[in-house]
Amino acid sequence: MAADPFDALLDALRCLPGVGARSAQRMALHLLERDRDGGRRLANALAVAMRDIRRCDRCRNFTAAKVCRICADERRSSQILCIVESPADVLAIEAATGYQGRYFVLLGRLSPLDGIGPGDLGLDQLERQLAAGATEEIVIATNTTVEGEATAHYLREMAARHRVRVSRLAQGVPLGGELEHTDQSTLAHAFSSRQPMA
Amino acid sequence: MAADPFDALLDALRCLPGVGARSAQRMALHLLERDRDGGRRLANALAVAMRDIRRCDRCRNFTAAKVCRICADERRSSQILCIVESPADVLAIEAATGYQGRYFVLLGRLSPLDGIGPGDLGLDQLERQLAAGATEEIVIATNTTVEGEATAHYLREMAARHRVRVSRLAQGVPLGGELEHTDQSTLAHAFSSRQPMA
Repeated sequence: MAADPFDALLDALRCLPGVGARSAQRMALHLLERDRDGGRRLANALAVAMRDIRRCDRCRNFTAAKVCRICADERRSSQILCIVESPADVLAIEAATGYQGRYFVLLGRLSPLDGIGPGDLGLDQLERQLAAGATEEIVIATNTTVEGEATAHYLREMAARHRVRVSRLAQGVPLGGELEHTDQSTLAHAFSSRQPMA
Repeated sequence: MAADPFDALLDALRCLPGVGARSAQRMALHLLERDRDGGRRLANALAVAMRDIRRCDRCRNFTAAKVCRICADERRSSQILCIVESPADVLAIEAATGYQGRYFVLLGRLSPLDGIGPGDLGLDQLERQLAAGATEEIVIATNTTVEGEATAHYLREMAARHRVRVSRLAQGVPLGGELEHTDQSTLAHAFSSRQPMA
């Protein structure tokens, strides 16, 4: 921790992901030379966000309110629930799809080796929601990593206990990609899961 | 300006150079999910820096004190003064060289078309320093752009009026570079300014 305000700023900027010594210096000098108002605005926005942003009571996404904007939106269906690992996934799905249901944000994935169990992901809370009976389908949108798949498996079992339909994002070759550059496991999966053409 | 603290944070992060919508999102989520302490520390460091950092009375570099660390260092020579465009240049020269003199930071370069004249760069203040007589040599380290060269020319004339020796950073092919990838004007200059080998 540096005593000099300039060094302290360089130090603090490096807590941002992807910001090393050189970018921190560039950012600090940019704000000091050309955008002190922006710097003050950022200081304020950070302080407010770190203090006020909490997890939505319903879906565990970040929000400054008791319930997030999506959960508070009465026009969205409560019958379908998309389960994602992180708030970034919610933003990505909202930006790319016309999905009109709700979300549940795990903020992580099952990882017994790291001591992350169902309780840490709010899965007890999710189970109470499913038990309440309003949900008809869950869409599992965890990552296709080992932990993401383990989490998906756990979610499928839970849904079965409550007789809730389960779906999972389609897996296969990405659109606009070239087969030549598709990784082997994706290509193998896409080949064995090939779909009949209408 | 967004009312929601999360959107306000995304907005504010984009005032950092090189940070677009996606990086802002990644940064905000990283701080919220994994480093709230870092976020608070950054908010505080920014607020202090934007409020307290001013220009050194002597060299115009950024500092929170009346006089910056370099100017306050009695072991450094006042006889030699290196003139740079920006605080980043001071950091670069300090990191790369063993220079033990002082600096003068223009915080810009002469650019009549943009309405930037000698007064905006503190050149009147510099001229008073030269007139005072302690300076024996100035090292011109402005950028090798058109405006940087014009500024260098102006500085040379000023130094001549006060009978101060002038030098300029050597120009030529960069070390560790390949001739093949050196731009034409640098190569032409390096060729015509070739040095006898001892």
